[in-house]
Amino acid sequence: MRTQVAIVGAGPAGLMLAHLLRLGGIDSVVLERRSRDYVERRVRAGVLEHPTVELLREVGVADRLDREGMPHHGISLRFDGADHRIALSELTGKTITVYGQQEVVKDLIAARLTAGEPLLFEVTDVTVDPETPLVTFTGADGVAQRLECDFVAGCDGSHGVCAQLVQGTVHAHDYPFAWLGVLAKAPPSHSELIYTYHERGFALHSMRTPEITRLYLQVAPDERIEDWSDGRIWDELGRRLAADGFTLATGPILEKGITTMRSVVTEPMRQDRLFLAGDAAHIVPPTGAKGMNLAIADVWVLAQALGAYFRDGRTDLLDAYSETCLRRVWRAEHFSWWMTSMLHKAPDADAFQQRLQLAQLRYVASSEAAATSLAENYVGLPHRSAAG
Amino acid sequence: MRTQVAIVGAGPAGLMLAHLLRLGGIDSVVLERRSRDYVERRVRAGVLEHPTVELLREVGVADRLDREGMPHHGISLRFDGADHRIALSELTGKTITVYGQQEVVKDLIAARLTAGEPLLFEVTDVTVDPETPLVTFTGADGVAQRLECDFVAGCDGSHGVCAQLVQGTVHAHDYPFAWLGVLAKAPPSHSELIYTYHERGFALHSMRTPEITRLYLQVAPDERIEDWSDGRIWDELGRRLAADGFTLATGPILEKGITTMRSVVTEPMRQDRLFLAGDAAHIVPPTGAKGMNLAIADVWVLAQALGAYFRDGRTDLLDAYSETCLRRVWRAEHFSWWMTSMLHKAPDADAFQQRLQLAQLRYVASSEAAATSLAENYVGLPHRSAAG
Repeated sequence: MRTQVAIVGAGPAGLMLAHLLRLGGIDSVVLERRSRDYVERRVRAGVLEHPTVELLREVGVADRLDREGMPHHGISLRFDGADHRIALSELTGKTITVYGQQEVVKDLIAARLTAGEPLLFEVTDVTVDPETPLVTFTGADGVAQRLECDFVAGCDGSHGVCAQLVQGTVHAHDYPFAWLGVLAKAPPSHSELIYTYHERGFALHSMRTPEITRLYLQVAPDERIEDWSDGRIWDELGRRLAADGFTLATGPILEKGITTMRSVVTEPMRQDRLFLAGDAAHIVPPTGAKGMNLAIADVWVLAQALGAYFRDGRTDLLDAYSETCLRRVWRAEHFSWWMTSMLHKAPDADAFQQRLQLAQLRYVASSEAAATSLAENYVGLPHRSAAG
Repeated sequence: MRTQVAIVGAGPAGLMLAHLLRLGGIDSVVLERRSRDYVERRVRAGVLEHPTVELLREVGVADRLDREGMPHHGISLRFDGADHRIALSELTGKTITVYGQQEVVKDLIAARLTAGEPLLFEVTDVTVDPETPLVTFTGADGVAQRLECDFVAGCDGSHGVCAQLVQGTVHAHDYPFAWLGVLAKAPPSHSELIYTYHERGFALHSMRTPEITRLYLQVAPDERIEDWSDGRIWDELGRRLAADGFTLATGPILEKGITTMRSVVTEPMRQDRLFLAGDAAHIVPPTGAKGMNLAIADVWVLAQALGAYFRDGRTDLLDAYSETCLRRVWRAEHFSWWMTSMLHKAPDADAFQQRLQLAQLRYVASSEAAATSLAENYVGLPHRSAAG
């Protein structure tokens, strides 16, 4: 088999890259270890930045997003028992859109399959040779395959095969807490997201649809989900999210799990003819809702660079790929660290640090400049042209 | 002896309080351990916030400040070998004024003595009884005195007698570095302050007058000034402040010293009839230039509260004094911590944290919202009426 770009991984990064390349007349083959059903159901992030939505619209995969996505004009910071709204639209002229990552994945899979382009699920034994480059794998039918290509895009996440092939530096930071996340069959208790700082720890009220709530609790990194009955989860959510005039709607918990929080950045995001994108190159803690959005930004840069190569023989944009992406990545890492530090209870924080944290929350809630700074990062700083 | 308010300490806080009280028709006696000559020469902070300057003007002690003070419309953040200007005036409509703390002290001493009001230097053996209240001391003439009063204002700094009398909580944070400061007979090398982040550590280019430069270097907290010859200091300043088109003017070093960096907040700022103000209640690291400005803000609140008491018998403002001040104090502590963290090289920072730091500097230098947030804190958030 031969293609121009072998794409390892059918998450948002891989699927969006395949879509962008197709629009640019570039062939690709997408390989995915999991089944279609699995990736279409995998619950992940759910907040799309403004530039992500704009891009999805521009490239024609936003029909359902525009029908079903929920645009949000603000978020709340809840502390001192009251809400402090960050008016995203008023401060930046932009919105965010609540739309699950798996919905984006479904839309991109549908677009890929409608176009009749290669997208192979349940492949195993994937190996990547970044230098030749060459990808080998075993198809769902059990037949071993060689995929020759000009470039490989590593979009297979932090535990995938591609991340390990880069001979660079991995910058990592572990946070001293985790998120216990639940998906509940309960209507959202408030029309917007509520980021809560409470002395018992962070809590987040989010949503997926008008019927499904997404809720999170800060827990210790070694907490076991078995110790959290549904009743205990609702009790703790009720305690942390308590505020005047607020009633937490409850309902059956459909899914629950604990995820640790890490920051990881691989530098460079390239090894020979292998380019990393999305989680394969970097992880952010979920507080800033930046993970999927960074993945989309990466492949937008990569698609432009590959386009310039195949169209004009230019290699400058490919050579600049890593640096171009890393500017945005480090900005997002900083923002995510900042939101995380401001909203979580650090187990080792002394009273001085806790007062600083409250002083910061009160400032962000009262200064237009500080609120705008939060808002512009949250709605997403503009994608800058890689060719610019 | 009897007075309405006994003021311990003739720094900016004590002298300004005495001045404000006099304007409100309230008697006070100011006691100072040092000589007049000493306090008028003691080199300390040199950046006056906008609200500080406005207040000094409003109460008639800004004639020389308006003649000799140097209004600044911006500051530079220097990193990656280049300057990134924070346009204070454009972003906030306000300026800061470079004018040494000892000059403010001179002006306030002159005002006090011209008015013929009691200001006693070189007193010893000061004791304060916050409950009665009563102050005892030995005058410069060696005569022991009792000073009866309605209230005591503790304006005698962090090592004074008053701070220790508050039975509250002391929040403290030590920073893992110190500042080596020099006063040099050399013209400023640039018309504005330059806050430099360099891989060898922080450096600051500041000034006192058109002939006198004030320069600082981040050093280890256990560094000894004896190990820093003038030559070594200039070499290190030259290295850290290096930038295209910049030449560091050198000259004889008039004064040099090392100061550790701490954050301290005493809560509450009151014990019975003793009220703390300025450094006696809180210390900030010097990076945000907030120390003297906080002292002035404190005594402005205190003077209003004492005015309401003596004029109308109201105690509500006195009761609110600590909380009113602490809101501003914690804001300033947070800002000072933030500036300090962003600009210094933390000895224990890993590569991830250093990248975050650079990402933050680049963001502050490129986002109007973030630059405005720095600027509005730097020029000083408005004094809010304690009676409001």
